[in-house]
Amino acid sequence: MNPVVIHDPTLRDGQHAVRHQLTAAALRRYAEAADAARIPVVEVGHGNGLGASSLQVGLAAVTDDEMLATVRDALRHSRMGVFMLPGWGTSADLQRAVERGADVVRIGVHATETSLAERHLGVLREAGVEAQCVLMMSHMASPEELAEHAARAVGYGAQAVGIMDSAGHFLPPDVTARIAAMAKAVGTVPVIFHGHNNLGMAVANSVAAADAGARIIDGCARGFGAGAGNTQLEVLVPVLERSGFATGIDLYALLDAADLAERELMPAPPIPTSMSIVSGLAGVFSGFKHRVVELAAAAGVDPRDVFFELGRRQAIAGQEDLIVDVVAQLSTNAHGKDK
Amino acid sequence: MNPVVIHDPTLRDGQHAVRHQLTAAALRRYAEAADAARIPVVEVGHGNGLGASSLQVGLAAVTDDEMLATVRDALRHSRMGVFMLPGWGTSADLQRAVERGADVVRIGVHATETSLAERHLGVLREAGVEAQCVLMMSHMASPEELAEHAARAVGYGAQAVGIMDSAGHFLPPDVTARIAAMAKAVGTVPVIFHGHNNLGMAVANSVAAADAGARIIDGCARGFGAGAGNTQLEVLVPVLERSGFATGIDLYALLDAADLAERELMPAPPIPTSMSIVSGLAGVFSGFKHRVVELAAAAGVDPRDVFFELGRRQAIAGQEDLIVDVVAQLSTNAHGKDK
Repeated sequence: MNPVVIHDPTLRDGQHAVRHQLTAAALRRYAEAADAARIPVVEVGHGNGLGASSLQVGLAAVTDDEMLATVRDALRHSRMGVFMLPGWGTSADLQRAVERGADVVRIGVHATETSLAERHLGVLREAGVEAQCVLMMSHMASPEELAEHAARAVGYGAQAVGIMDSAGHFLPPDVTARIAAMAKAVGTVPVIFHGHNNLGMAVANSVAAADAGARIIDGCARGFGAGAGNTQLEVLVPVLERSGFATGIDLYALLDAADLAERELMPAPPIPTSMSIVSGLAGVFSGFKHRVVELAAAAGVDPRDVFFELGRRQAIAGQEDLIVDVVAQLSTNAHGKDK
Repeated sequence: MNPVVIHDPTLRDGQHAVRHQLTAAALRRYAEAADAARIPVVEVGHGNGLGASSLQVGLAAVTDDEMLATVRDALRHSRMGVFMLPGWGTSADLQRAVERGADVVRIGVHATETSLAERHLGVLREAGVEAQCVLMMSHMASPEELAEHAARAVGYGAQAVGIMDSAGHFLPPDVTARIAAMAKAVGTVPVIFHGHNNLGMAVANSVAAADAGARIIDGCARGFGAGAGNTQLEVLVPVLERSGFATGIDLYALLDAADLAERELMPAPPIPTSMSIVSGLAGVFSGFKHRVVELAAAAGVDPRDVFFELGRRQAIAGQEDLIVDVVAQLSTNAHGKDK
């Protein structure tokens, strides 16, 4: 059995599903349950990571400092992870997180923007914590590009490097090609895979990743996360075990943690809805959904057409203005047809 | 693009999730939506098939005759399918269904009990409708056994033959081996795959089935079905299309049908809960859940242990008495340990 390290961002990526409103008490209870299941890494934070809590993207119910203190106190066996997007968070946020006991720190960058992580990875290496780098929206880059950027991240000091299927677009063969190329490029450095379930493929993609050489796999209790949700952790673990990978996690305690998460963290577990299926097919971040639906309705165009056109234009997070353009174009086209 | 025929048992297998209480109005609305999407076969009935409505397994809200008349009237393009378990239904039920316009009739038998379908398949061939045979709890039989029984079913007159992953136990390699063996054994006769989502693998298993030669694949809107649910139809279709298979289904109309199903057929879409994950891992029909949980609680034993022991004993539907034995044994063991 090859070992795989399970990384659990329930208390960070899951926050997107509840507008970052998890309470300190809820963070503590889930962290204790995850710790009892011996989940290796429990990640916590605002959905967009350290320093992101703001009026613009949403104020979290709890400050970064309180989140870290709460989860640190709850963990006996698990290591604590945090996430940061350069620009949203700064080196000062990283230093504070390390002082508050973060063991594993991930820097997230767009698939082909590894250079943005260089300085932060250096800071983390000096601080003596595990420095990881994840490439987001990775379906927008080829296996070769991802391999090149993975090698660059390792050159900057990353001790693990991987990809997020941020739009939930991948099918297993897509994952196999990318992870294999990256694993080959970085040798013994562990490769990370983080899935989303827009096409019902998060668990299957994660197994494909492990088969192709990934050694750190992410999953969230009940798939807690935005839109169609993340890889369902308590499904992922026994399926990996059956597929020949050792996680070291206690199954019953893991199921208990997932039951607690369903009861205490979320209004309802995520499922692939029609709009999240479309965003996955189009390869567009599902966080665009509310604006797409709103603007499409106002203009009388089909929001599904908007998603597919955004996909053709390769829209990424931060480019929400493109929605306005696309809706206007589709509205003009429809108007033209009516004449 | 290889063609795949999508078979939609939303209005039959989905009934299990609502104790067979779908109304005639709901049947009609979903059938119309499925027809608009050009889904090739729309199956309708009591969850356990023709003739099964009874006090013992649950009285349906609508009689078989009214279900068939309602859906028949709603379909313009799609063919109408029905399902029957020998013993629950009879040849007389089959004749009535054919008279009421069933185009595709499936006989379901335990994986290694094909002989029970012989007479019924003969009746159907004489009646001139498409006769299909599906082998249930197919994880309990080897690829070789399934191939042998598939060939037998074809000998009895089946025009399509396949497997149901009734316990949601399969991972893709399990499906590949079974479908490939069956396809080889039956030559040009189409092979059927029907998945359940206990391990989050229903869509991935269905793609594996198609890759291995299956030509009829089942899916239910939003996965509507008992426990963790069936293969989610509106995810399955675009994923099959992206994987090189042509379904002939209109994606937007399919998404509309799924939205309607979520709104009008079900209290909430199914997800893999802890107990359905355990039943999938154990290879036990999730219909055992309520009795297992009830009896385990009364005896103070862990229902998960009960499921795994039922799996070791290869319990199948109809053997609910085994639950009592297993609970008693586990209770004695626990009592012994306490001394």
